[in-house]
Amino acid sequence: MSNVLVNTIAEVRARVAAARRAGRSIGCVPTMGALHAGHGALMERARAECGTVVATIFVNPIQFDVQADYDRYARNLPADLAFCGERGVDMVFAPALEEMYPAPAGTFVDVPETAQYLCGQHRPGHFRGVATVVAKLLHIVQPDFAYFGEKDAQQLAVIERMVEDLNFPVSVVSVPTVREADGLALSSRNERLTAEQRRAAPALYRALQSARQAIADGVRNAETVKGAALPALAAEPLLRVEYFEVVDPRSFHPVAEVAGGVRIATAVWAGSTRLIDNVFCPAEESSARA
Amino acid sequence: MSNVLVNTIAEVRARVAAARRAGRSIGCVPTMGALHAGHGALMERARAECGTVVATIFVNPIQFDVQADYDRYARNLPADLAFCGERGVDMVFAPALEEMYPAPAGTFVDVPETAQYLCGQHRPGHFRGVATVVAKLLHIVQPDFAYFGEKDAQQLAVIERMVEDLNFPVSVVSVPTVREADGLALSSRNERLTAEQRRAAPALYRALQSARQAIADGVRNAETVKGAALPALAAEPLLRVEYFEVVDPRSFHPVAEVAGGVRIATAVWAGSTRLIDNVFCPAEESSARA
Repeated sequence: MSNVLVNTIAEVRARVAAARRAGRSIGCVPTMGALHAGHGALMERARAECGTVVATIFVNPIQFDVQADYDRYARNLPADLAFCGERGVDMVFAPALEEMYPAPAGTFVDVPETAQYLCGQHRPGHFRGVATVVAKLLHIVQPDFAYFGEKDAQQLAVIERMVEDLNFPVSVVSVPTVREADGLALSSRNERLTAEQRRAAPALYRALQSARQAIADGVRNAETVKGAALPALAAEPLLRVEYFEVVDPRSFHPVAEVAGGVRIATAVWAGSTRLIDNVFCPAEESSARA
Repeated sequence: MSNVLVNTIAEVRARVAAARRAGRSIGCVPTMGALHAGHGALMERARAECGTVVATIFVNPIQFDVQADYDRYARNLPADLAFCGERGVDMVFAPALEEMYPAPAGTFVDVPETAQYLCGQHRPGHFRGVATVVAKLLHIVQPDFAYFGEKDAQQLAVIERMVEDLNFPVSVVSVPTVREADGLALSSRNERLTAEQRRAAPALYRALQSARQAIADGVRNAETVKGAALPALAAEPLLRVEYFEVVDPRSFHPVAEVAGGVRIATAVWAGSTRLIDNVFCPAEESSARA
């Protein structure tokens, strides 16, 4: 299958307007490229639900808190285009830096409460950069539906809050995390792991599962939940925990006691590579023994 | 003439979508009500340029830095509706506070550079509140054109920068300031002036004209320009100058020397009422003697 590569905002708008005139709904899958099956799940969902599917590929500099991370972020447009084509994407918008930021960014979208803890605390300005570029992409593509992965759950919460608060005329669709057979969540950053680090990395998901199990078993105190989970990470000397928290699934504020649905989220360093993962623990599960 | 009063976001969207299906362009005139001939000029311009004209009337709490100013801001919906009707407005969106902010605002749009000085410096958070509510209204109405007055020139610059940076699919149209016969710029706040204050208030425009004349006469140093203008304000004991600045017309940063087009802007207090005004001084004028 083939798709159309578009580099300019004007051409995206013209093509989307034509699709809309033809009565087709528009789905948008914003990505930073380095596509893997996690992105594939977003595209397949969009393909099933929308008349026209637009994927965007843009490594957004203003969401990187560390320049070196931006510089070494994987870029492989030919492979990404083939990947999109195989999943029935109609149009790929892959703008140059100057098309997205002809001048240094002078406007920023902030979602301060939702971005206060976890990744927001450890990566200053990260979610401001994410919210700002997503606002831009939503204005450029003007989709009916926009697809984001649950793997980046706090990002998803920030975007949902932004869309709700600012009345963006779009529906945000969240898509479950895709995992390797051993549980490791798919991420473009997994490619950077050494073989040893790769063998240690599934401990993230094991720890999250232990935490979820503790809650299902009736544990309500968040510190006790973490106590049940952290040994799985401590057992891996190649991993260093940045955070491991039980949070409110909407605000992403840590909770002291589990009451209702919670999300358990972690960030772990393997050498110079940062991995994140999370699981949702629904209210039924956390109240089963209450 | 009559128009349609709409209170909900859902109904605005349905009516705008119907107008668009009928092939009509959409113009939006955002206001806080207390309408006067300045707003009238925006509506008349929109009426001349657009198939469907939507005025919004909403006193936005998050742009007021002082609660008392919000509380006493003039509200008179019946008069405003009649005013809109007389100017051929098709639809008036006048939402309740809960429709616009069902929860406390959790997302904010910041244009920090443009908002750094003048009103932005003296009214902390003001332009953040303006940019945020305008983003909301643009997402609700989804107009092709949005109309703003040059009287609030820094606000206009903030909105133009936001629309440009975030790629909002809208054209911002600026409309010249409407003045009383004695030069006082129309403002909803003029109603609060005592008769004595009202007689003093035209000194703002006289001072701005003196500054513009100084530049036209070849003065390039901003302090010298201000020196030519400020006596007109100092002569009025009922007025207290908050700022009087010569600024870059895009960034609203004060300039030390006039080179190219500049805007001259002032804020003055008359008792507890704050008045603002500004004039543009084009490059031709400022370079006439260069």
